[in-house]
Amino acid sequence: MRIGVIGYGYWGPNLARHFAQIHECQLVAVADSDEGRLEQIRRRYPTVRAVARGEELIDANDIDALAIATPISTHYALAREALLGRKHVLIEKPMTATASQSQELIALAEEQDKVLMVDHTFVYSGAVRKIRELIEAGELGQIYYYDAVRINLGLFQRDLNVLWDLAPHDFSIMSYLIDQAPVAVSAVGAAPIRRDGWKPESIAYVTVEYNDGTLGHLHLNWLSPVKIRRALIGASQKIVVYDHLDTDNPVKIFDKGVEAVTDEHRRRILVRYRTGDMYAPKVDQTEALELACKDFVACVCTGRRPVTDGWAGLRVVQLLEAAQRSLEAKGKTALS
Amino acid sequence: MRIGVIGYGYWGPNLARHFAQIHECQLVAVADSDEGRLEQIRRRYPTVRAVARGEELIDANDIDALAIATPISTHYALAREALLGRKHVLIEKPMTATASQSQELIALAEEQDKVLMVDHTFVYSGAVRKIRELIEAGELGQIYYYDAVRINLGLFQRDLNVLWDLAPHDFSIMSYLIDQAPVAVSAVGAAPIRRDGWKPESIAYVTVEYNDGTLGHLHLNWLSPVKIRRALIGASQKIVVYDHLDTDNPVKIFDKGVEAVTDEHRRRILVRYRTGDMYAPKVDQTEALELACKDFVACVCTGRRPVTDGWAGLRVVQLLEAAQRSLEAKGKTALS
Amino acid sequence: MRIGVIGYGYWGPNLARHFAQIHECQLVAVADSDEGRLEQIRRRYPTVRAVARGEELIDANDIDALAIATPISTHYALAREALLGRKHVLIEKPMTATASQSQELIALAEEQDKVLMVDHTFVYSGAVRKIRELIEAGELGQIYYYDAVRINLGLFQRDLNVLWDLAPHDFSIMSYLIDQAPVAVSAVGAAPIRRDGWKPESIAYVTVEYNDGTLGHLHLNWLSPVKIRRALIGASQKIVVYDHLDTDNPVKIFDKGVEAVTDEHRRRILVRYRTGDMYAPKVDQTEALELACKDFVACVCTGRRPVTDGWAGLRVVQLLEAAQRSLEAKGKTALS
Amino acid sequence: MRIGVIGYGYWGPNLARHFAQIHECQLVAVADSDEGRLEQIRRRYPTVRAVARGEELIDANDIDALAIATPISTHYALAREALLGRKHVLIEKPMTATASQSQELIALAEEQDKVLMVDHTFVYSGAVRKIRELIEAGELGQIYYYDAVRINLGLFQRDLNVLWDLAPHDFSIMSYLIDQAPVAVSAVGAAPIRRDGWKPESIAYVTVEYNDGTLGHLHLNWLSPVKIRRALIGASQKIVVYDHLDTDNPVKIFDKGVEAVTDEHRRRILVRYRTGDMYAPKVDQTEALELACKDFVACVCTGRRPVTDGWAGLRVVQLLEAAQRSLEAKGKTALS
Repeated sequence: MRIGVIGYGYWGPNLARHFAQIHECQLVAVADSDEGRLEQIRRRYPTVRAVARGEELIDANDIDALAIATPISTHYALAREALLGRKHVLIEKPMTATASQSQELIALAEEQDKVLMVDHTFVYSGAVRKIRELIEAGELGQIYYYDAVRINLGLFQRDLNVLWDLAPHDFSIMSYLIDQAPVAVSAVGAAPIRRDGWKPESIAYVTVEYNDGTLGHLHLNWLSPVKIRRALIGASQKIVVYDHLDTDNPVKIFDKGVEAVTDEHRRRILVRYRTGDMYAPKVDQTEALELACKDFVACVCTGRRPVTDGWAGLRVVQLLEAAQRSLEAKGKTALS
Repeated sequence: MRIGVIGYGYWGPNLARHFAQIHECQLVAVADSDEGRLEQIRRRYPTVRAVARGEELIDANDIDALAIATPISTHYALAREALLGRKHVLIEKPMTATASQSQELIALAEEQDKVLMVDHTFVYSGAVRKIRELIEAGELGQIYYYDAVRINLGLFQRDLNVLWDLAPHDFSIMSYLIDQAPVAVSAVGAAPIRRDGWKPESIAYVTVEYNDGTLGHLHLNWLSPVKIRRALIGASQKIVVYDHLDTDNPVKIFDKGVEAVTDEHRRRILVRYRTGDMYAPKVDQTEALELACKDFVACVCTGRRPVTDGWAGLRVVQLLEAAQRSLEAKGKTALS
Repeated sequence: MRIGVIGYGYWGPNLARHFAQIHECQLVAVADSDEGRLEQIRRRYPTVRAVARGEELIDANDIDALAIATPISTHYALAREALLGRKHVLIEKPMTATASQSQELIALAEEQDKVLMVDHTFVYSGAVRKIRELIEAGELGQIYYYDAVRINLGLFQRDLNVLWDLAPHDFSIMSYLIDQAPVAVSAVGAAPIRRDGWKPESIAYVTVEYNDGTLGHLHLNWLSPVKIRRALIGASQKIVVYDHLDTDNPVKIFDKGVEAVTDEHRRRILVRYRTGDMYAPKVDQTEALELACKDFVACVCTGRRPVTDGWAGLRVVQLLEAAQRSLEAKGKTALS
Repeated sequence: MRIGVIGYGYWGPNLARHFAQIHECQLVAVADSDEGRLEQIRRRYPTVRAVARGEELIDANDIDALAIATPISTHYALAREALLGRKHVLIEKPMTATASQSQELIALAEEQDKVLMVDHTFVYSGAVRKIRELIEAGELGQIYYYDAVRINLGLFQRDLNVLWDLAPHDFSIMSYLIDQAPVAVSAVGAAPIRRDGWKPESIAYVTVEYNDGTLGHLHLNWLSPVKIRRALIGASQKIVVYDHLDTDNPVKIFDKGVEAVTDEHRRRILVRYRTGDMYAPKVDQTEALELACKDFVACVCTGRRPVTDGWAGLRVVQLLEAAQRSLEAKGKTALS
């Protein structure tokens, strides 16, 4: 299997590095419009074609699959052309700028019988997979809430606000962990850093309500002096703290909880507290992007559908669209 | 000055302990309806009257001031009687169950020329006062956001939800630090712990928008396995991390920030990052409640108005009422 | 059982508070030479006798047991008189200023058939008892090392150096956990804070070697800007981190380790690493001093021997004496 | 300037990567005896010669300087040949297996007028340079102690114990920061992981006493479940906490201290405590190895002497030798 990478800016180099190391595939070409980056590619991968236009890779006969790591606004057009050109496609998150574009790509991939995968890297991390295992094994019980904090002194982007930059991570993790349909999304934010009409939200709070009452909430912030990447997952049997920055023990499971019971004789409601052991299971430390890239290669080779397929990508874009609408309507509840 | 304490449950013993130690005042009597607690009072303070009914203290001629530490629903009636009985009054937070009750008490205290103070303890802490100093000195610049996380495995209360239990702390701090009028309040929550119609929200997210665009946000949670008491205060010149549980360095000031500027020649917007030193100023470690109690005594003795007077109490109750309304309307923006 | 407390300085008030609350005993009298403290005692415990001289308690007929919380230099004489006066005795740590004094007291208590207990509080803490349980259950395997760090900006004491102030804690824990005889003790230190001939060591490092090769080490420091109270206990099956300041999870057990094996075919030594789960067992959160005081009362009532009896106290004093000798001999290995 | 790297095991790839990126020099060749590694070199650097024997680089005419990243036992012979072959030399730490070898290399470099530098990377880190600046500016006052903890589940090495593996880091930092001659070194350790006569110390405690009374101490441990890389530097005016793993604020300066003064009237010694602000200065975040490699290149180009020259390397080896002697003599004080 031969692969090309379109876009060699922030994330493209990581994709190229992984695909260059996977034995089952061959990195054939990389495209970027910036001459300096092309020079870097040539120095780093002397045997790989470095070209200015992604279209050259779409048209190439010696390429089976394309990884697209360009600005979001270009995802749809490039992926569409690639699928029409009978290439398998891996797209950076978020999949597209609109949900209808994602739906089109899903249909097209189906038609062309090609793999369409979105790079929701976190879903491949050992920590998130471990939490999913715990949920599937029934160890956590019923999920009550998912509270994520994703803040740091972030890199402002010209064409994105903090919602589109950071929420895809949590939306993809939530979609993977919570087997429920979101029924309401709301978001508020602030855009204190602004200039000449450019005023992207750099702080946002997003609430997602699920069918069964589970409450999701994100704190996204580009203006925090401290870096936090932490989610609390409250459930009826256990409560999980997932700290992405704690490399040794990213997942901690607390046997803590509260139960309301009725004291029949005295006809009162009693609240019982449970505070037991905590444990931090060993999690697979393999780099998540390596696993994602390998899974893409494996799906292309076997025809298997990836975990983070087009539908997973669509779900994230739908949440982003709804949150963006709510943000513009000052927090009014929205959902596609 | 002679003082009585009504209510010897969770917080009353702390008030009694402090008033018993302040030289300028004398703890004369404590009231509580529970016989076991009265027994404790007698053992601990053999010279202090321990009585079953608060009304006895209100009627007593040898008492100048009363501290009310009973359930919220009783605050208004007790404080009203106490003021009518020409006692100075210190009420536990939140001041009353409704804003109109607070307004009545303010008017009554004015009429009777008595001190009316609300025990917003945090406003007296060294950390919060230090932050206020920094703001007043202009060191932080314009405030962008106030983000508070106040979570732990909390004590469920029969007649309160997590909002009325925990938000008063942050609302009082925000009112003290942010010299702006809140223009919108919204809140969402979940009540997974429930039984026979009793279903208090045990998780809540509250958003407060201020006149000048400052964004306030609270995460309140009785179902967290970890205890966090932290606020981020983002501003144009500095960003403050206030961690109440870090006893050594509760206030950290980061010289970090972002600025958008225009590159005139190239007509582009550039984002400039600033990452300088961090420092943790020494803060007064005196117990906040001791300072609050002493201030009440001083105000009674001198006629001075306390920082956390009735108006401060009213502002917190107004925010609570608005947040409660929004909570019941599934996040719809509210404000009195 | 009726008890008296001699010494109401730093620790005495804690002993008095606990004995006053234990139902099985009655706090009858407290002695201290400082009039201000006597005044405090009278205010706090109006029914308890407050006297200036400890001898009055020793001679009193209405007292069955004495707790001695005076400066170390006075422990021996007071405890000796108390035992001769047929009182049960609880002594603050360290038991006496010399090992021979401890031995005398042990013999005397035996003769008088009285309980002699040393207040090695940490041995009664839930965390230390949990670690002992793990060791006894064979869960840790063979102990390799015990590394303790006990540092902060400490209270300098006029008649003690940092060794005598802080090492008793770790020596008592080590004696309780490690079922081996220490065979060598060495210590080095520095005394940078000094004046007019007064130059107590404010930093000390102590090494204890045990019969089976287990290595113990203490870092004791009154000049640290951060407070650390942590021990690592390395063993063949598990490694324990005991952090006294982590109130939620003071004991963490890591399934990590290293094993050297021989690859028979290739005749090489291979090192195998094991990195499994971590868990933090729930530990009893009861205040350790409360348990110690209750145990003293129970031992007096039942004639049972306490865990921290005279022999336990002697072992700590022997280690202190040896470490002090080594400190004075610039680190030369010592042992009584 | 053209450079070759000998040894492509653990550290060699890092050296190669940096030299390949520095504009002022050209990576010409890399030598390693392992064929698999040579293959990696060829793939990564297609234009760089990959050869099996370091001697080929020593003899090559197109090479001006060599970086030696082979096992310690080979450092001396390779560096000697390289200098005789008129190459500038950068050696991995520790410089050589014995101090006399280091002395020989220093003399030879002098004779051949070549740069001889040891890769004491930490000395080039922003954090360590910042601390040195503070010391030079007199901000810390007189240094009282340097306490380093360098522990984790370490990689056991066949021909090294934990002392030779980890102590070079702290010895080089101490030599850089403390302008005093060490007058005594002692070390104790344990070797619980052993097999068939192979029994390297995996835990060691090292004490270094300086001329002016400054006390240095290292805790080195390959058997810790937690990773700590922290040094406390106690001094008369300030105390520094240097935490290498805290990437945001590796250097924290505490305005805390203790002073003993005489109260003239009452003829007593009083201890005064100072607890002021803490601050964390911004430190240069450039990768230390990048700076070290660039400095080597600059020294070769300009003839300037590097900070971590042969004499710096010798001082570290002398401390290692002394500590090793003490370790073998069960803690007996040693110094060359």
